Amino acid sequence: MRLKFEDVCSVLEKVLSTRNCKSEFAATVAYEVARNSLEGCYTHGINRFKSLISSIDRGLIDVNATPVLEKQSLALENYDGKMGLGITNAIFCIDRAIDRARQYGIGLVALRNTNHWMRAATYGYRACRQNMIGICFTNTIPNMPTWGAQDARLGNNPLVLAFPKERGDIVVDMAMSQFSYGALELANSEGGKMVVDAGYDHAGELTRDPGSVIESRRILPTGYWKGAALSFVLDVMAAGLSQGNSSFDIGELPGGEHGVSQVFIAIDIYQIASAEQVGEMVDAAVANLLASKTITEGERIVYPGQRLHEIREYNMRNGIPVGEKIWNEILNLLE
Amino acid sequence: MRLKFEDVCSVLEKVLSTRNCKSEFAATVAYEVARNSLEGCYTHGINRFKSLISSIDRGLIDVNATPVLEKQSLALENYDGKMGLGITNAIFCIDRAIDRARQYGIGLVALRNTNHWMRAATYGYRACRQNMIGICFTNTIPNMPTWGAQDARLGNNPLVLAFPKERGDIVVDMAMSQFSYGALELANSEGGKMVVDAGYDHAGELTRDPGSVIESRRILPTGYWKGAALSFVLDVMAAGLSQGNSSFDIGELPGGEHGVSQVFIAIDIYQIASAEQVGEMVDAAVANLLASKTITEGERIVYPGQRLHEIREYNMRNGIPVGEKIWNEILNLLE
Repeated sequence: MRLKFEDVCSVLEKVLSTRNCKSEFAATVAYEVARNSLEGCYTHGINRFKSLISSIDRGLIDVNATPVLEKQSLALENYDGKMGLGITNAIFCIDRAIDRARQYGIGLVALRNTNHWMRAATYGYRACRQNMIGICFTNTIPNMPTWGAQDARLGNNPLVLAFPKERGDIVVDMAMSQFSYGALELANSEGGKMVVDAGYDHAGELTRDPGSVIESRRILPTGYWKGAALSFVLDVMAAGLSQGNSSFDIGELPGGEHGVSQVFIAIDIYQIASAEQVGEMVDAAVANLLASKTITEGERIVYPGQRLHEIREYNMRNGIPVGEKIWNEILNLLE
Repeated sequence: MRLKFEDVCSVLEKVLSTRNCKSEFAATVAYEVARNSLEGCYTHGINRFKSLISSIDRGLIDVNATPVLEKQSLALENYDGKMGLGITNAIFCIDRAIDRARQYGIGLVALRNTNHWMRAATYGYRACRQNMIGICFTNTIPNMPTWGAQDARLGNNPLVLAFPKERGDIVVDMAMSQFSYGALELANSEGGKMVVDAGYDHAGELTRDPGSVIESRRILPTGYWKGAALSFVLDVMAAGLSQGNSSFDIGELPGGEHGVSQVFIAIDIYQIASAEQVGEMVDAAVANLLASKTITEGERIVYPGQRLHEIREYNMRNGIPVGEKIWNEILNLLE
């Protein structure tokens, strides 16, 4: 089925209100979750809403909490998220980083004791809307073995790098696993294989079969040892700067993933660079990339973030695709 | 053969002096190049020195140039590297970033018109020595096809993320290709295969054979589409912040790679976090990672940067391994 963006927002908002979420926060979270699906990020949109509500219902999230400033030092700030909603906490912090960047050229805000921010790109795009570069990362519960290991001791620690561009920001939003469990589950339900190795099966062989990896819980770091190393350093940076939990600490907490650590960096690039000159450089770089000779004839090369606008427009016109079962489960949350 | 660190420094310094490099710069470059080999980064140490001298001899590098401030805005600075030596320019800029960070908590310095900085980790470790986090990246000449493409339009744009830690900083130094050409050439000369796919052969098939990839010039982005995307956004960030050349622009310059763009970020973490608390968190995270159950019995899991100290100590005691042919070629540069 396909649903109108406004209708999705309205239902999600109502559900959040039944969980005593104040109206401002309910509207923000509903909007961002619906927007993720609208923009084609289905794994972090409507499909994940039920798990958000489940975390609220299990008492892991304090829906009305707001970040409390722990320490400030000019362009740096450090907040305790008080186990509030991941989305509203993260929006607060990227906005603070943007504010610091406007004042000092660059700003960094670290956040501890927060919850899943859903889609990393949200906070990168928010910096871009202010004509700033955004660099944000979060840690997660341990869900990925390091390279050469069997047991999951690393988070897949999503990272976003966002560069503002007229007619479509350049945004990389990547987890440190080659595929998220969400992507594996989607492929598995459709009976498909991944295009490259996704992890190990129970026999310890690399496999593209999503079902085998879901079973073994042995997803592959992106770039093998590189994604594993990157995951680890992002984890200690997030936990260190925020004085919060590392992935290891999060794994020790009872009740599933909560209390994660995050970092938000905004850079007010046009304080030191000319928008016109940068715009020309970027347009030329994009045009050059898109002119690549493809391996498969007729295939299309895009720059990171390019497809979003087409998907958004299509879904705005035709409605957001939602599984009927998932939507009914969400409607049931209203009862 | 194995050579004493001091002897290597002394010879490299002399060679640089014959190229009219002022003594301070000659000593710095010789020390850093020798140190890269000393610490096991052989691809960016002595083995690469001849190519550095070749760039000088071809007039691509102005050995005595120093960065000129173009624009400053509190924690941000933007320099023109005036085609100076990559190492001295980069050291200047990370030191400026550290200085900005000490003043504002975080500092970012962008550098254009500079040259190969050799080993990315150098600048991360430099931040760590000041108890700061370092994040640095550079673009390069186009040398890697994007995911799905045949022709090399992306740089492999090395990135370093460095976190200070007593008894061994945590440092990730990664190019955006799964293997560097240096690593492929080394394996090829030894007749070995890479442990995972390294790129495409002439027939367009993924291969672990280094020779086939060297021939086709189709190295693989690390993590496939992820490394390709990351490479592109780092490129526009470096070129944008510095108002310098993008990888595309660098490819258009005659005479081989020169005039690259770089970014140096330092974060004075202990302005907002307690060193003691962070130290405990990091020690626990490292211990947990190292306790991973390995796939192959007896294999060893290390944290990023851990091996450096052992290699350094070993090479300091036993001498730095250097190919006799390469060393003789360097000695010939003195004549």
